Amino acid sequence: MTKGATQGAARRRGRRPGGTDTRAALIDAARAVFIEQGYDGATVRAIAAKAGVDAAMVNHWFGSKEGLFAEAVLKLPFSPHELAERLLDGDVDNLGQRIVRTFLTTWDTTGGGVFTALMRSITSHELAAHVLRDFLIKHVAGQVLKSVGIDHHEFRATLVASQLVGMGMVRYVAQFEPLASTDVETMVAAVAPTIQRYLTGPIS
Amino acid sequence: MTKGATQGAARRRGRRPGGTDTRAALIDAARAVFIEQGYDGATVRAIAAKAGVDAAMVNHWFGSKEGLFAEAVLKLPFSPHELAERLLDGDVDNLGQRIVRTFLTTWDTTGGGVFTALMRSITSHELAAHVLRDFLIKHVAGQVLKSVGIDHHEFRATLVASQLVGMGMVRYVAQFEPLASTDVETMVAAVAPTIQRYLTGPIS
Repeated sequence: MTKGATQGAARRRGRRPGGTDTRAALIDAARAVFIEQGYDGATVRAIAAKAGVDAAMVNHWFGSKEGLFAEAVLKLPFSPHELAERLLDGDVDNLGQRIVRTFLTTWDTTGGGVFTALMRSITSHELAAHVLRDFLIKHVAGQVLKSVGIDHHEFRATLVASQLVGMGMVRYVAQFEPLASTDVETMVAAVAPTIQRYLTGPIS
Repeated sequence: MTKGATQGAARRRGRRPGGTDTRAALIDAARAVFIEQGYDGATVRAIAAKAGVDAAMVNHWFGSKEGLFAEAVLKLPFSPHELAERLLDGDVDNLGQRIVRTFLTTWDTTGGGVFTALMRSITSHELAAHVLRDFLIKHVAGQVLKSVGIDHHEFRATLVASQLVGMGMVRYVAQFEPLASTDVETMVAAVAPTIQRYLTGPIS
């Protein structure tokens, strides 16, 4: 991912032992190990061993296991840590807006191809859904919701996931019009109140 | 589909010319023709010709082109006409509740397998998404929204689709807990306000 490589450059300064071959090998190994072992079960050591490189290369190229997952499996142009920080930077009452805006600007940039590939992996069981769940719900949404200090974290996180996944399916995969080509701010106005209620509003 | 066959029995009384072979042939032919020609482009005549049976067999077995689509492609246990009628039978202010309850009770009954197959068809381009769009947005959601008499029909319909598709993806395909095993009425309480706002509330 050129974009990931560029934005993540700060983590990869200095000499580049193993070069881009090492990086590509780690991404291939990571996909295999995450799918076999699950997100929590996969270790940096096991991924590095499968790639035939030193475990220090993971931190060198990806910052952390999270960063490697985000880039190898989700192909996100930022780390989940950066994502959580960006979402939490501002008023909690506008969190829904920031989530919808970030989701759409990120996936719109790639034309939705990466999102479609991700959904295809899940529906065809190439990517075990629980790997994605552990990562998204526990490690990203869980973090955000803990900071918000609200009840029913995990149910709220899965409700948020339901609206975001569905928005991506309709916009990028099925491409139902007019939603598929509606501008980002119109989408934010329509969908952010849903996300905000799932995060901090009444849900029962 | 045993369930469809049972519930649709009223449409299929009397002699059964061609028997179940005719029915199966029509379902196979319908899938092929709908995918080739789109929902609006597919004619009852073309489907019957491909199946090698008389066009009257479509009405005999499925009531209409809509009914054939619902059973052959969506594998719904009711016709879209019945669905729209059921949804519109009651107060408009409770339409969101009826939609979420109907969606969940229908797909929960099949264990979500049919929903997963449908999503896999769309993500892998086996089923052209525009076929589904023409059917769902124009012929089902469009009908419902026209009866409600609200503005921005098509955008509202795609917003509703986004939440329903996402709820199905999280509950049946990815099976993210706790949403995947949350009881129907708790889901209705959490999600119906979203659907209701997309249908009749402020979206800008």
